[in-house]
Amino acid sequence: MTQLTNTHLYREIHQQPAVLRQLLDEEEATAAALADLIRARGVEHVVIAARGTSDNAGRYAQYVLGARNGLSVGLAAPSLFSIYNRPPRFGNALVIGISQSGQSPDIVAVLAEARRQGALTAVLTNRPASPLADQGDVVINLQAGDERAVAATKTYTAELAAIALLSAALSSPAEQRAELAAIPDAMAATLDMDGAIAAAAPRYRYMQRCVIIGRGYNYATAFEMALKLKELTYTIVEPYSSADFLHGPLAMIEPGFPVVVVAPSGQMSAEALDFTRTLRERQAEVIAISDDAALLALARVPLALPAPAPEWLSPITAIVPGQLLAMRLAHTRDYDIDAPRAIRKVTETV
Amino acid sequence: MTQLTNTHLYREIHQQPAVLRQLLDEEEATAAALADLIRARGVEHVVIAARGTSDNAGRYAQYVLGARNGLSVGLAAPSLFSIYNRPPRFGNALVIGISQSGQSPDIVAVLAEARRQGALTAVLTNRPASPLADQGDVVINLQAGDERAVAATKTYTAELAAIALLSAALSSPAEQRAELAAIPDAMAATLDMDGAIAAAAPRYRYMQRCVIIGRGYNYATAFEMALKLKELTYTIVEPYSSADFLHGPLAMIEPGFPVVVVAPSGQMSAEALDFTRTLRERQAEVIAISDDAALLALARVPLALPAPAPEWLSPITAIVPGQLLAMRLAHTRDYDIDAPRAIRKVTETV
Repeated sequence: MTQLTNTHLYREIHQQPAVLRQLLDEEEATAAALADLIRARGVEHVVIAARGTSDNAGRYAQYVLGARNGLSVGLAAPSLFSIYNRPPRFGNALVIGISQSGQSPDIVAVLAEARRQGALTAVLTNRPASPLADQGDVVINLQAGDERAVAATKTYTAELAAIALLSAALSSPAEQRAELAAIPDAMAATLDMDGAIAAAAPRYRYMQRCVIIGRGYNYATAFEMALKLKELTYTIVEPYSSADFLHGPLAMIEPGFPVVVVAPSGQMSAEALDFTRTLRERQAEVIAISDDAALLALARVPLALPAPAPEWLSPITAIVPGQLLAMRLAHTRDYDIDAPRAIRKVTETV
Repeated sequence: MTQLTNTHLYREIHQQPAVLRQLLDEEEATAAALADLIRARGVEHVVIAARGTSDNAGRYAQYVLGARNGLSVGLAAPSLFSIYNRPPRFGNALVIGISQSGQSPDIVAVLAEARRQGALTAVLTNRPASPLADQGDVVINLQAGDERAVAATKTYTAELAAIALLSAALSSPAEQRAELAAIPDAMAATLDMDGAIAAAAPRYRYMQRCVIIGRGYNYATAFEMALKLKELTYTIVEPYSSADFLHGPLAMIEPGFPVVVVAPSGQMSAEALDFTRTLRERQAEVIAISDDAALLALARVPLALPAPAPEWLSPITAIVPGQLLAMRLAHTRDYDIDAPRAIRKVTETV
């Protein structure tokens, strides 16, 4: 059995503060250039093409670029381009492709069509020499270095930070940019949760299913934590917005059903508290990821975020306990941490 | 124990052919009027606001209005309007609200903001006198009559048909409209699957989790079938596009893991076959919903669609075996068919 600290995954999770620092330093000018193009063209709509982990970064972009920059952001349906060959009109939209590897043919197809239509294109990738990057008018390099574990971690938080950098460049940047500059240190502090999470993981050794709830900015966090748990621990884990969950799926909850509530403090706090009380009434097992004492007090297993961030940036650190729990739970189950069964690092779908 | 045939759910599922006939007759002129407004305004982007079952109808709209009408369709993030109070700019987009009850405050908030911004608004609802309908420049009445079972069935297929009617009105309508006119009879024929599904349901009496795969037009079907199973049978069921599933979640599949593949024949067939072969290699238990003999031959439990529809309309009938399986499985488990635990007919979220 490999020592956990010798795995790529462990190392890559712990590289995240350094990756964020480098990204914020190196890519600010590129983000500013993209912001200038968006303003110059009067862009109002954004279409994002991505799969897997990168699609979850797209979910974050929908909230950040929506709430802070007034942009209408939608997620593309890549099969319209790659299989049906009936691409919609982009009009004056910005089309963003997000992919760690820059390889997946369906995502490349969306960007190539956008460029053919004359739309502004941007690419967020860890591979600035890749088929996807070739289709970008602007390319933001994630600056994450080689990512060798199959489960993406540092490229995900780098994607979020790149989107936050663009958001800051699009608005009055001083305050936002200062908040963003504090994130690498907050990330480092958040990694200290590993001890508490290693202690909590064995409780879930035989968990076969769970639900993860996040809403607003942290809707993305729920999706990404669910994906990490699925990839690394083979548990069936479904992410939900609390609002969508109340429209039907609440019926699944029975005593002991595990529900992770990801709710860093912010404008979503009151709603998260109400929702968690509903879960308690139904005797769910609540695992809370939050810096809000009232919410943590309602949880069977409280996982306190040690370095609160402004809500709009909280997804960058709030995913860390999710990454750590997936890693620790896989280790508890004696699974291969760096190469989960059945999947590869670069997935090429059409 | 109530006789199954005396439940609201059973009756409402079987009312679907009649509802579709009435909708197609009564609402064609309204759909045409909306199409005229879309053309007159030069709309290129569509934003859809919906929750639960109606959100799944929105997923269908993304493919139909995209592939057949060249419109870029995105799903709104309602909390930007209702909780963060930071609505994005709609520009020249059409904003569509979809809701059986027309009541949910978060969906009403999106449409009210769209109207405030001067965007064109449309509402699809079974309650033309409702707060949501009040915000629509055009209101399509789903014509479904009272829906009393908590799990929505006839209003879902009516929503799909209303979207198809709009698509037909937006394009050279003759062929599309003729294809659509055949759907009520196809729906009636598809209801004959109930016997086969009643026979298959006991096999899944103790199933605790499963995955449902659909892609392209039937991405919506996977989501809606998953929602019905969750609401009615309290099973954890996660819907996926096959492409997204290969980007990580495939790791969950072990021998005997139940996977429903919804793949009516069409341009997605080759990809569905490849994907199903991958599932077979991993010894998944495949339940296939299709009219494609090659795909059905790969399944442990083949559920043959008796009345093939053109691919763009196939979601209207392909959901029927999903509705029937959820109903039959709930019955097998002695659950309350019309009033699942924990949820109500009208869910008001903010």
